[in-house]
Amino acid sequence: MTALMADYRTTRARSMEWVAALSAEDCCAQSMPDASPAKWHLAHTTWFFETFVLEAHEVGFQPFHPALKVIFNSYYNQVGDKHPRAQRGLLTRPSLGEVKEYRANVDARMVRLMESTQLPDALQDLIALGLHHEQQHQELLITDIKHLFSYSPLYPSYFTPVAGPTIQTPPRPAPTWLPLDAGVAQIGHAGDGFFFDNERPHHSVFVQACALRSHLVSNAEYLAFVQDGGYANPAHWLSEGWEWCRQHARLAPLYWKQVADTWMEFTLQGLQPLRLQDPVIHVSYFEADAFARWAGARLPTEAEWELGVSRYAEGGAQGLVQLFDAAWQWTQSSYAAYPGFRPATGAVGEYNGKFMVNQYVLRGGSSATPAGHSRKTYRNFFPAGACWQFSGIRLARDGVCA
Amino acid sequence: MTALMADYRTTRARSMEWVAALSAEDCCAQSMPDASPAKWHLAHTTWFFETFVLEAHEVGFQPFHPALKVIFNSYYNQVGDKHPRAQRGLLTRPSLGEVKEYRANVDARMVRLMESTQLPDALQDLIALGLHHEQQHQELLITDIKHLFSYSPLYPSYFTPVAGPTIQTPPRPAPTWLPLDAGVAQIGHAGDGFFFDNERPHHSVFVQACALRSHLVSNAEYLAFVQDGGYANPAHWLSEGWEWCRQHARLAPLYWKQVADTWMEFTLQGLQPLRLQDPVIHVSYFEADAFARWAGARLPTEAEWELGVSRYAEGGAQGLVQLFDAAWQWTQSSYAAYPGFRPATGAVGEYNGKFMVNQYVLRGGSSATPAGHSRKTYRNFFPAGACWQFSGIRLARDGVCA
Amino acid sequence: MTALMADYRTTRARSMEWVAALSAEDCCAQSMPDASPAKWHLAHTTWFFETFVLEAHEVGFQPFHPALKVIFNSYYNQVGDKHPRAQRGLLTRPSLGEVKEYRANVDARMVRLMESTQLPDALQDLIALGLHHEQQHQELLITDIKHLFSYSPLYPSYFTPVAGPTIQTPPRPAPTWLPLDAGVAQIGHAGDGFFFDNERPHHSVFVQACALRSHLVSNAEYLAFVQDGGYANPAHWLSEGWEWCRQHARLAPLYWKQVADTWMEFTLQGLQPLRLQDPVIHVSYFEADAFARWAGARLPTEAEWELGVSRYAEGGAQGLVQLFDAAWQWTQSSYAAYPGFRPATGAVGEYNGKFMVNQYVLRGGSSATPAGHSRKTYRNFFPAGACWQFSGIRLARDGVCA
Amino acid sequence: MTALMADYRTTRARSMEWVAALSAEDCCAQSMPDASPAKWHLAHTTWFFETFVLEAHEVGFQPFHPALKVIFNSYYNQVGDKHPRAQRGLLTRPSLGEVKEYRANVDARMVRLMESTQLPDALQDLIALGLHHEQQHQELLITDIKHLFSYSPLYPSYFTPVAGPTIQTPPRPAPTWLPLDAGVAQIGHAGDGFFFDNERPHHSVFVQACALRSHLVSNAEYLAFVQDGGYANPAHWLSEGWEWCRQHARLAPLYWKQVADTWMEFTLQGLQPLRLQDPVIHVSYFEADAFARWAGARLPTEAEWELGVSRYAEGGAQGLVQLFDAAWQWTQSSYAAYPGFRPATGAVGEYNGKFMVNQYVLRGGSSATPAGHSRKTYRNFFPAGACWQFSGIRLARDGVCA
Repeated sequence: MTALMADYRTTRARSMEWVAALSAEDCCAQSMPDASPAKWHLAHTTWFFETFVLEAHEVGFQPFHPALKVIFNSYYNQVGDKHPRAQRGLLTRPSLGEVKEYRANVDARMVRLMESTQLPDALQDLIALGLHHEQQHQELLITDIKHLFSYSPLYPSYFTPVAGPTIQTPPRPAPTWLPLDAGVAQIGHAGDGFFFDNERPHHSVFVQACALRSHLVSNAEYLAFVQDGGYANPAHWLSEGWEWCRQHARLAPLYWKQVADTWMEFTLQGLQPLRLQDPVIHVSYFEADAFARWAGARLPTEAEWELGVSRYAEGGAQGLVQLFDAAWQWTQSSYAAYPGFRPATGAVGEYNGKFMVNQYVLRGGSSATPAGHSRKTYRNFFPAGACWQFSGIRLARDGVCA
Repeated sequence: MTALMADYRTTRARSMEWVAALSAEDCCAQSMPDASPAKWHLAHTTWFFETFVLEAHEVGFQPFHPALKVIFNSYYNQVGDKHPRAQRGLLTRPSLGEVKEYRANVDARMVRLMESTQLPDALQDLIALGLHHEQQHQELLITDIKHLFSYSPLYPSYFTPVAGPTIQTPPRPAPTWLPLDAGVAQIGHAGDGFFFDNERPHHSVFVQACALRSHLVSNAEYLAFVQDGGYANPAHWLSEGWEWCRQHARLAPLYWKQVADTWMEFTLQGLQPLRLQDPVIHVSYFEADAFARWAGARLPTEAEWELGVSRYAEGGAQGLVQLFDAAWQWTQSSYAAYPGFRPATGAVGEYNGKFMVNQYVLRGGSSATPAGHSRKTYRNFFPAGACWQFSGIRLARDGVCA
Repeated sequence: MTALMADYRTTRARSMEWVAALSAEDCCAQSMPDASPAKWHLAHTTWFFETFVLEAHEVGFQPFHPALKVIFNSYYNQVGDKHPRAQRGLLTRPSLGEVKEYRANVDARMVRLMESTQLPDALQDLIALGLHHEQQHQELLITDIKHLFSYSPLYPSYFTPVAGPTIQTPPRPAPTWLPLDAGVAQIGHAGDGFFFDNERPHHSVFVQACALRSHLVSNAEYLAFVQDGGYANPAHWLSEGWEWCRQHARLAPLYWKQVADTWMEFTLQGLQPLRLQDPVIHVSYFEADAFARWAGARLPTEAEWELGVSRYAEGGAQGLVQLFDAAWQWTQSSYAAYPGFRPATGAVGEYNGKFMVNQYVLRGGSSATPAGHSRKTYRNFFPAGACWQFSGIRLARDGVCA
Repeated sequence: MTALMADYRTTRARSMEWVAALSAEDCCAQSMPDASPAKWHLAHTTWFFETFVLEAHEVGFQPFHPALKVIFNSYYNQVGDKHPRAQRGLLTRPSLGEVKEYRANVDARMVRLMESTQLPDALQDLIALGLHHEQQHQELLITDIKHLFSYSPLYPSYFTPVAGPTIQTPPRPAPTWLPLDAGVAQIGHAGDGFFFDNERPHHSVFVQACALRSHLVSNAEYLAFVQDGGYANPAHWLSEGWEWCRQHARLAPLYWKQVADTWMEFTLQGLQPLRLQDPVIHVSYFEADAFARWAGARLPTEAEWELGVSRYAEGGAQGLVQLFDAAWQWTQSSYAAYPGFRPATGAVGEYNGKFMVNQYVLRGGSSATPAGHSRKTYRNFFPAGACWQFSGIRLARDGVCA
């Protein structure tokens, strides 16, 4: 209980810290249907605790405000009506101040609940799920704010070194290929500790001989692809990726911008010169796949990625770096149920399973991922055209490479 | 000069009063591409003075902020780049506070300019144009806020009796038909006083014998049309209007909502029971035209409307009421140049002329029109499907009626 | 009766002649929702006689085929269900051969009806309406086939000098301005002879002093506009026209095509070098309006056009040419009811009135208009963006010009 | 050579047989961008031989008609320009007759080439690829014609018992579950015989214990799902599937139609009463997945399906039926490269690889699949929303079932 309570306080506090630099207006706007206002993230994560924990377990439960139940439901059909997703930016009421009150109210009641009684394990698990859910929304909050600010002619800077996420430029040695042998191996979550339902069951897979690249693809490497006419040659691209480029007039990653002769990148610190040694970020699956084909390589499967971590980051051997703190790494694996997958019971069973179509798995974590949130078996997923996330590229190759 | 200065102070102050009840969040959101955030209205009207007056006439002009020149340009191609209209709601920066500073800064410089020198007539006219422009945006600000709030599940109330516009319910005597004789008459602006370029020249038209309805169509009358299956019978509708109903699933005016068995209307005071004696508002041209056909009447031409005012409101005779303070009145006249029309010179020549296609003229004024803004020759215009304005219906009939 | 019967035979035969050069495949395809397959035109015009004449007046009426009643209804809501307009090209059944049988069957029954009895006037009028309706569809058939063929990489030629419409290049003297005096005058159809309901009533209008151009704008003149950067300067364009150019990537008239350094035009005889002395055709209202503004002129009103014909083509004076056989002439007049307009009774009342919104009137006639179909009071109408019709430009000017 | 020549004649003749019942109009129309006109299929398959075989290997090659190279290219970027896919229905020229001439011309030249010389193996493989390509288009021709006819108010019948594909209703014993053991096994094409590049390499996979259903889901079973409110309960559906139902207003399979109280189905023999014992067809992946969840089962992976065939159709055991002649069977496997996949070299390398995203694999074959075309390792693929193919459902279950 003490640990859960501490986690609760830490996680809930981080959400507030991460909006400290934002105005009420910044927190209200929605730049596209796929993104949500920061205020909505703050309220929806609170709604999760109110709806799934307090409503079921608080004695004499009264909702903070009945309308919020609809407004801040995201996609749980079993819980009732939802506000249309594309209209979240029109919710000027409740105000940011009122949402903060909502958070404080729910926090006080949650603390009271956690203090008052020895919680059953299932309830503790549900609260832990709520906290991991909030951590996911913390990263989304950052990616959504960045997307919003990218539309501003003022190129605002979000970055506040103390409170916000940081982007590190690790020193970059020469990348190497790290081989994996063919054979049966196990992937998926096993043992204790928190996990999402989609990480289970722990199960056997057969993996072919292959190799993973030690480092992520850098901006310099991706720039070479751009300058080699990568976006103008359909031979590199999936057919749908080629159409996607045409439709979005895409000639470089989402936030790259050529000013005079200089490549700039819109970042959380505003418009900055492109840092060539940094991993490329904000690429879609289509771009990651096209780059890999151009480079004579391919994207890893999620099994290869996970086994690579087991061997080259956790095991005796070392060498696989930039795993959890630089950029999510597209895999070639379509997001699907593991064999024997069972969704969690109740409404939270809508958490993962119903999205298992037309999405691709990303592994690892990014500079915007809250510390401790991700892990080796974690399965992030987005549609192939998504690029407003901190998504990058790790290459793989068939066979054993030197 | 004194009068102009007084007008300047009054008009500029009214904009601030009309947003006094709104939060920064309320002022930032944009509910559809046709509507603009309140903050944008506040800034754009200021931009008008800065760009067209100060930039040309202030000694040692420096822009308040160079980026605002793009951000708050609406549609003046001759003035340079524009921020995309549909993305005005993404402008969380500059903040509402900064926009208020922008207003204060420009106001101080405008007052200094007006105090410092005897302004040439053309410049005085330009400033007057800027004030009338701001009054137009004051009404748009109200209609846009109402539209925004209509999406909120909280049904917010904007209305503050002291500062905001009021909706009056005049006592309703039995409406009558007021006849007009056939013959040549003159319409359009003549003489002194402010006018928009589209009100000129004063010119002759031939008008047929007809009659105008003394009062606007009431909610009660419109409800009879609804209850008679008006929205389900294509015989009442223009072909494009019929498609418009299908496309928007329209079964009643925009803000009407049937709750259980009661007709409610979303208003500036939130969701309220439908006031049957009030004029129907927020109808499109298509709806106004369909209602008129169902009622065995038609919409007036703008010439008939204007001549009706001359005879029955300004002249000896009386009887034409609800002209300027209840609801704009759709006419059957397509918005077109008067014979001999010449747009104003310079960029402000883009003010009116370039919109003269696929729009219909509305005459009069509404409860949201600033006092003194409209006049007999004033030509408001919107596309036939627009219904978020305070637009209502005055009927006309061919021939002389009893 | 004899005259009507002769008209019937002539008009019905012309439709068959005009498709003689087309294959069944040519007659089946639909290039856009606004256009219809030739086969549909052949059948719909037949449906008109079967539905409005035979069904009401034939003894022992039996439909040729019950399903055709739905398939070939265009827009008559009072007559029942309609096949979706955008799916007319999917009607591979009935075949062209079966439609020809349908025509022959209805023709035989119509002739029998006309021979058997002295028809009441109203029925004669209805048959005449059906023939003028068919003539309208004959022109549409040509414009729709041209549009269809314009998509073909083979640039097919429709033109067969004997059977089809011809495009004449009249010798081109120097155009002049023909003045009209200000004053009250009458327009609209009067007297005997066929007319559509929208040409009535004959009524008074007040026309300002102005002048009309003797000739239509030529390709050479329009090319000067193109080469002067006409499509790149928003100052020439209505705001909506400017957007229309962007949206359709329009840089020249619809069927113009620059091949190497030569301007070509897709015609009914295939791709041909642009004939500079011919009137420009296939321009939208937006283009006509922009050209006129660039040329320091304007488009005429429909009243000016009609009075110009009365004075300079019918009256003593001469000089107004290229009226009925070169290209329809856009007017600045929105398509609206004449004062006192009453739609025809019954379902044919849907013929004209319900389209009186967001369309602009064209006057005259084109090289594809069947001989004798048009007249001075004829009001053709299309939306401002339509350009697949044979639509051209006649200029007007305010005041009296030398 | 003799065998290849015989295959060539048989396959090419089948295409002609399958259009024998269609008119030129039927062969020209295109009902949606995803479907192609029959004429296009006839010409494109011919273009394949002309472009990939004759152009490279015929002495003194001259194209039948230069324009056809563009018109009938489908998606081979390396081969040059393409006619826009959505405009294939506008190709009234060349006519069906000319396309038949094109076929005859290319056939004669192909036969001459095959007779004249001992073809190298690579060329024989290319010709075989062309024949299998044509067989694929034969099935598409049937599905596209069915889709086109489904829009006709006349409900045309395509079916001609002698020449066309047949739909068999096998006697239906009680279905059973057929178990598969966990372990490593091999899938993918091995050995001789024709295969597409996407069926290789033969490789190891790990399969969990599971069971496959002996028979396909029948219309009766699917009707139970419909009548149980299957389309109204989001709990059965993937999130994107639920949206897909809303967007397409789908309440039953594509061609089902409730007439009064009777369920009918549009078939190649026109509108017919639903045959309850037949396998359900024309379901999307979304529908197949939702049905499976409702039934307490799931879709098989493609490895499970292929191993099931090895064991229960080819091996000693029997029991897995309705494999290749009833309906393609959706698997839960996203269409992806097998480990070590290498696309074929040259332009035909665009055949499969570039579509490996956002598609799902279907296994088996349907009543419209040409005899001998499919095989155990064959991987058909379509987007999750596709339902105009003859696609059905085979269920699977985790673990070993009785």
